[in-house]
Amino acid sequence: MFDPKALYKIGYGLYIITSKEEDKSRARARYNGQIANAVMQVSAQPVIIAVGINKQNLTHQFITSSGHFAISVLEQETPFPLIQRFGFKSGRDIDKLAGVGYGWTAEQVPYITDHSLAYMAATTIGTADAGTHTLFLGEVTEASILKEGVPMTYDYYHRVLRRGVPSTAPTFQFTEEKKGVQSVDKYICTVCGYIYDPEAGDPENNIAPGTPFNELPDDWVCPVCGAGKDMFNKGI
Amino acid sequence: MFDPKALYKIGYGLYIITSKEEDKSRARARYNGQIANAVMQVSAQPVIIAVGINKQNLTHQFITSSGHFAISVLEQETPFPLIQRFGFKSGRDIDKLAGVGYGWTAEQVPYITDHSLAYMAATTIGTADAGTHTLFLGEVTEASILKEGVPMTYDYYHRVLRRGVPSTAPTFQFTEEKKGVQSVDKYICTVCGYIYDPEAGDPENNIAPGTPFNELPDDWVCPVCGAGKDMFNKGI
Repeated sequence: MFDPKALYKIGYGLYIITSKEEDKSRARARYNGQIANAVMQVSAQPVIIAVGINKQNLTHQFITSSGHFAISVLEQETPFPLIQRFGFKSGRDIDKLAGVGYGWTAEQVPYITDHSLAYMAATTIGTADAGTHTLFLGEVTEASILKEGVPMTYDYYHRVLRRGVPSTAPTFQFTEEKKGVQSVDKYICTVCGYIYDPEAGDPENNIAPGTPFNELPDDWVCPVCGAGKDMFNKGI
Repeated sequence: MFDPKALYKIGYGLYIITSKEEDKSRARARYNGQIANAVMQVSAQPVIIAVGINKQNLTHQFITSSGHFAISVLEQETPFPLIQRFGFKSGRDIDKLAGVGYGWTAEQVPYITDHSLAYMAATTIGTADAGTHTLFLGEVTEASILKEGVPMTYDYYHRVLRRGVPSTAPTFQFTEEKKGVQSVDKYICTVCGYIYDPEAGDPENNIAPGTPFNELPDDWVCPVCGAGKDMFNKGI
């Protein structure tokens, strides 16, 4: 028995992980950040935190390079464009920090302050290989509350905001018929994370409930960001 | 700056981790389980999960011995005695499974079904040293929903149920004046997890709000389980 829905019962928050590239030859350091949900404290004395980062991501390269990272805890009211910026775009294409509020840790790593309730700074003390991802274990060297509020939960993000995750997320639901995983009929916009659910359709754009994704008109576009059908991937 | 309250903003669920002792010389295998909050999926293909377990715990010994464990996701309505049984007692002293509902994974590891929304079975594929704790990385081999419901969150457990954690938890708040950690005035019952908060006092037992723990009468006992003052530890 392998029902991926069981994995959805695991609870997470939503975070922005930031890091820097340690390259002494550069006149100016480079910085990057990404959305993550796989964050947890794993020891209290000293305080050690673990974060799971996809090996393809620029933040993975930067944490490996500098050994320093920061974690900002996003609030429930975080507007989707901020999540989109850090979760669905690559720092190889855009400067993630442009136009975003941030501060600096003692190790000169930026931490995001926009819509963040708290931040922590960590220094890598170990790693574990998790296939597509690496678990970075970091000793927490700074921790501070930024404002009061309710943290965003991963459950809220999925169920209330109805948003999906990129295929690089540790919780991405692959749809191959593997180990009895059931194929799902939902499609996710790889640009903005909008989920097309055939059961709901897209009534505002004259798509009746019950319309499978492959029966959508060729000129149908993502109702959130306007991306074409070819920018959608199966699964959520 | 090191404010431990920032770490409280990290989101978790609450789980029972079960395992078995692989000892061929025994006529009958031994089984154990414990409460954990440090559980997260870290890879999607294959599905890999990470759990943080204190090195002192019997479950740590059993997972190390057998390489197999199971995770049950507790529901919000889980009664405290079940959490107390698996979180505040040792399998070295009692048979954790006695009187509790459970099933069996294909690898003959018990998984708790009482007040569980889902379970997963995993085989250890790696570990990472996190000081007092070990992170076990397991490939998930079984996953199943047990019933519908709302998962318990760690936040709910602390804020609504007003319960604490044992000193072996990865999130235990040590009160040493280390790195600027502020000493707290709350005390936790090591038997049942009840928290004595001086601000609230214990009015039902004639302890006025504002009474510090060390000014409680010598015959004051835990209002939940009746343990004496000497069974309380500082900090939550």
